[in-house]
Amino acid sequence: MEENNQNVNEFTIEGRNAVIEAFRSGKPIDRVYVLDGCQDGPILTIKREARKQDTLIKYVAKERLDQMSETGKHQGVVACAAAYEYADIEDMFKLAEQKGEAPFLFLLDNIEDPHNLGAIIRTANLAGAHGVIIPKNRAVGLTATVARTSAGALNYTPVARVTNLAATIEDLKKRGLWFVCADMDGTRMYDLNLKGAIGLVIGNEGEGVGRLVKEKCDMIASIPMKGNIDSLNASVAAGVLAYEIVRQRLL
Amino acid sequence: MEENNQNVNEFTIEGRNAVIEAFRSGKPIDRVYVLDGCQDGPILTIKREARKQDTLIKYVAKERLDQMSETGKHQGVVACAAAYEYADIEDMFKLAEQKGEAPFLFLLDNIEDPHNLGAIIRTANLAGAHGVIIPKNRAVGLTATVARTSAGALNYTPVARVTNLAATIEDLKKRGLWFVCADMDGTRMYDLNLKGAIGLVIGNEGEGVGRLVKEKCDMIASIPMKGNIDSLNASVAAGVLAYEIVRQRLL
Repeated sequence: MEENNQNVNEFTIEGRNAVIEAFRSGKPIDRVYVLDGCQDGPILTIKREARKQDTLIKYVAKERLDQMSETGKHQGVVACAAAYEYADIEDMFKLAEQKGEAPFLFLLDNIEDPHNLGAIIRTANLAGAHGVIIPKNRAVGLTATVARTSAGALNYTPVARVTNLAATIEDLKKRGLWFVCADMDGTRMYDLNLKGAIGLVIGNEGEGVGRLVKEKCDMIASIPMKGNIDSLNASVAAGVLAYEIVRQRLL
Repeated sequence: MEENNQNVNEFTIEGRNAVIEAFRSGKPIDRVYVLDGCQDGPILTIKREARKQDTLIKYVAKERLDQMSETGKHQGVVACAAAYEYADIEDMFKLAEQKGEAPFLFLLDNIEDPHNLGAIIRTANLAGAHGVIIPKNRAVGLTATVARTSAGALNYTPVARVTNLAATIEDLKKRGLWFVCADMDGTRMYDLNLKGAIGLVIGNEGEGVGRLVKEKCDMIASIPMKGNIDSLNASVAAGVLAYEIVRQRLL
């Protein structure tokens, strides 16, 4: 509850002019909520700006906007700004180069829970990864909750957003990265070669890794499961896989 | 918010007679909140029952009780019942024996976040551990949030509560278990022998493993940390260590 309020207070922008200005100033906007059916000039401008920057637009009822609004004067639009600046993938390669290490990136296929995203960024930092790539649509962005749950890691580990994760994987393959995702029907992770330049793909909490993204992966790793239930928590699975990569890199 | 309400609705017991009855019926009670300064007969009976069962008693102000109370008729006492039944440590040894495996137990030294507790029970199940031991005082118990976050693992993996974790470790050592806890100043986990009957000790989110418990451990394992921040999320650290045990057991 406190957390939600915090998000609303610090990271939402309300009203037509304020939202247009935020877009034009280059402020990173995670998503825009627009009153369903609203079609006037300023709203069309906002939609155009959102599309230019690949920002997700959600059409919602007046009640939802009223609920999100702190001032009560949202004028049919509320934007959610990222609590942190997004990085470029280039920053990650630079970081790897500076450290004299083969690139090690995390790619998150639609993680929805901000606590999981924060915990995964924290793990990425401690496992020595050079960055985290998240998709622009559907997934959670860098909210205040993510920043808090990352325990400071967001200050050190670059996080980039991309429009199409499968296309990004294709691009990164050309730069020498191999990609591994987790799936129950994969090869036992201990039996894979996870050394060298690598991208670790973590799937969505409920659905796992999407088909298109999975098809782009070079390796499918399975975590041994000895229990009665289906799967580990997404951030725990990310940690277990990341540390198998760490172990192999240390050998 | 919704979650808190759910806890309050489903798992609190209000009023003197209701709480006394709950204790006498043997219902597992995680903690009892008593109005500070209240000393009459029924309250003394409740305190006696709570002490008999090693249930934590918290003395709180009237405002706190009013807030927790759904009926508004708490009469100075609110008890929080466990959403799940606790198991005995014997159940865990039986489970290991049935499977023909060396016992593998998790011991949690005061995990406070119910999401972490749920995720750790989920990990314990999938890593093939035979049970999870938690302390009675301070730590979170088996609330509805823990049950939900465990993704069903609470139906399979026994969870026992003990009064004194250090004393329990002493007892279990006599039954052939070795104990490992995680700490930054320990030996790299890959360099330890984690096969055989083992108890994995996971520390509190902020403070790590307590001194008394740490002194009882046979081994201190460190997870390699390559980043800029202090420590992994408690449930991620538990996952990484548990899977190092799984890896060594599979070798």
